[in-house]
Amino acid sequence: MATNDAYGTSGAKDNNSKYDADFTQHVIDLMSPETKPRHREILTSLIKHMHDFCREVNLTQDEWIIGVNYVNSIGQAYKKNRNEAWRVCDILGIESLVDEINHKIVSDEGLSPTSSAILGPFWSPETPFRDLGASVVQDMPKDGQLTLFHGTIKDVETGKAISDAVFDMWQASTNGKYDVFDPENQTRHNLRGKFRTDENGKFWFYCLKPTEYAIDTSGPSADLLGIMGRHPNRPAHIHMMVTHPDYIGVTAQLYPNDDRWLETDTVSAVKDDLLLDFKPIQNDPKGAVLDVEYHVRLLSNKYKPDSTMLMGNANQNKF
Amino acid sequence: MATNDAYGTSGAKDNNSKYDADFTQHVIDLMSPETKPRHREILTSLIKHMHDFCREVNLTQDEWIIGVNYVNSIGQAYKKNRNEAWRVCDILGIESLVDEINHKIVSDEGLSPTSSAILGPFWSPETPFRDLGASVVQDMPKDGQLTLFHGTIKDVETGKAISDAVFDMWQASTNGKYDVFDPENQTRHNLRGKFRTDENGKFWFYCLKPTEYAIDTSGPSADLLGIMGRHPNRPAHIHMMVTHPDYIGVTAQLYPNDDRWLETDTVSAVKDDLLLDFKPIQNDPKGAVLDVEYHVRLLSNKYKPDSTMLMGNANQNKF
Repeated sequence: MATNDAYGTSGAKDNNSKYDADFTQHVIDLMSPETKPRHREILTSLIKHMHDFCREVNLTQDEWIIGVNYVNSIGQAYKKNRNEAWRVCDILGIESLVDEINHKIVSDEGLSPTSSAILGPFWSPETPFRDLGASVVQDMPKDGQLTLFHGTIKDVETGKAISDAVFDMWQASTNGKYDVFDPENQTRHNLRGKFRTDENGKFWFYCLKPTEYAIDTSGPSADLLGIMGRHPNRPAHIHMMVTHPDYIGVTAQLYPNDDRWLETDTVSAVKDDLLLDFKPIQNDPKGAVLDVEYHVRLLSNKYKPDSTMLMGNANQNKF
Repeated sequence: MATNDAYGTSGAKDNNSKYDADFTQHVIDLMSPETKPRHREILTSLIKHMHDFCREVNLTQDEWIIGVNYVNSIGQAYKKNRNEAWRVCDILGIESLVDEINHKIVSDEGLSPTSSAILGPFWSPETPFRDLGASVVQDMPKDGQLTLFHGTIKDVETGKAISDAVFDMWQASTNGKYDVFDPENQTRHNLRGKFRTDENGKFWFYCLKPTEYAIDTSGPSADLLGIMGRHPNRPAHIHMMVTHPDYIGVTAQLYPNDDRWLETDTVSAVKDDLLLDFKPIQNDPKGAVLDVEYHVRLLSNKYKPDSTMLMGNANQNKF
C-alpha cells in the first residue's frame, strides 16, 4: 500500500511536494480572532487531519464525491432510535477511543483502576436497588443459564475494600434485546439491578450468562462494515456502572472470556481486564449453573480530572 | 493552543502516552484480507487521522456528541439543489484541495500551466459556440459593466500559440445568479459562451465585469462558518474551461484583482495566477467600458496522469 508521507500531522511544509504547502494554514487562518479558543483548537486539528488525509491518499475527485454522498447518507438514515453517525463512529472505533481519552486515569504510582468501556444506549437511570443475593432475572428465558455473579470492589492504591459502593448492572436477554426495547417479552427492569457493597466491599447477585448479538445490518453504517469485510457482531456482555462518592466511577462492559468475537468486536470495546470466567457449579440454592467472580478496582476522587464527565448526557438518542 | 503530539500521522506508539498505543492499529486490522486495496488505503488513513484528531485535542464526550449530532444534521439538511456535505467541504477547503491534488501538474522543467480551481455547480454542457468578438451578454442588467475580454492560449513549454483551443466561459449576472437558476430574469445561455482560438491562439469576446455574491447563510454549513467567525462571501469571478485535444485542459475561476474577498474566499479557491486586471476603456465599438487581458498556459497531453479526470462527473447535484 503506497502512501504519501509528504505531509505530517502538523501539515508541515515539504518543499518537495508539488502541492501548495501554505494552503492548509490559509484555511485555518480564515478563522476570525474572535473564534472561541476551544473551537479554534478543535477545528485547526480537524482541518489539518482532513487535508493530510486527502493528500496522503491522493484522493481523486470521484472518491471525494463518494465521500460527500456518504456523509449526506448518514443524516438521511437518521431517525428515532437510529443514530447513524454514532454507529459509524462505533465501527471506526471512535466512541471507544473517546471513552478512553475521557476515562483513562492512573495513580501517582502508575496503578490503573478497572478499565472503562462505552456506556452504550441501554443504561437506565430508573433501575431499582435490589438486595445482595437477589436475582435480576424476572423473566427466565428457556435458553438462559442462571449465573451467580460475585466480587469485591477495592481501592486500587490501598487495596482496601470499599463498602457502600453501587454496582449497577444491565444486560440483554438471550434474544439480544434489553427490557425497554423488547416490551412484549420482558417486564420492566428485567435483567437490571443496582447492588450496594457490604462492609467488606462485597456484592453478589444472580443474572444470566450474556448472549452475543449482531448490530443492525442495514444502512450506511452497515455498508461501511461491508466495504471493510467486517462482521456485525458484538461479543456477549454484561454492562456495569460502579459508583461511590469518594471514588472515580467506572462504566464498562464485561465479556465471557470464551466469546468468539472478543478480538473483532464491531465497536472495539473489549479490554483485557474486562473478561469474565464462567465456571460450572452444582447445588446452588437458587439453581445457578454457572459462577463468575469479578473484582473492581477504583481510584480515589483526588485523581479526578477537571473536565466534567457527564456520562448520562452522552446517552442521548442512540440507536 | 496546547496540542498533544504523542501521536503522529502514522499512529506511532509513544510509550509515554497513557492511551493504548495499539488501539488504532487494532481497528485498522479489523478489515478483512479481502478488502479492496484502495478501500484499505483510504480507510486506513481515515481511521488514523480521525483517531489522531481525537487524541490531539483530547476530545471530550460532550464534544464528540456535538460532532455526532453535527454529522447527522448535514444529511438532514440535504435536498435538491442543496448538497450540504459538499458545502461543508468547501468551507473547510477540501474541494479546493482535492481539485489541486487532481490537477496540479508541472512540466519536466518545472513549468506550471494555468492553475486549476473548482468547477462549481453551474457549468453547462450545452453552452453554444459563439463567434470571436461576440457578446455573451444577452440580457444586459442595468448595473452591468460591459467588458472586452481577450487573451492568448499558449503551450507553457514552447510558448507556441495554440489554435483551435476552446475557451468555455460562464458567469453570474450582477444579481449573483446564473441563467438556469434565475429563469424569470435571464434567457437561456445568457452569460455563457464557447470561443475557439484563431490561428494565433487568440480569443476575444464581450462579457460583464463579474459581481461578488454570498453563499447561502442557513443550515449546518452556515453554522460552521458562524463558529469560525467567517463571512459567507465569494469574490466575483468568471468561470473558464479551456480544452484542446493535444493538451491537458484547465478549469478555473478568474477574479478581479481588486476584489475585497480574494484573501478570504469562503471556498478558498483563489490562486495568484487567476487574477484579472480590469482597465477602463473608451470608444469601444460595442460600448465596452472595461478591458481585460488574460493569457492561458496549457501543458501537453504527454504529462497527463493515468487516473481519469472526469470533471463532468464531479458536477453532480451541488447546491
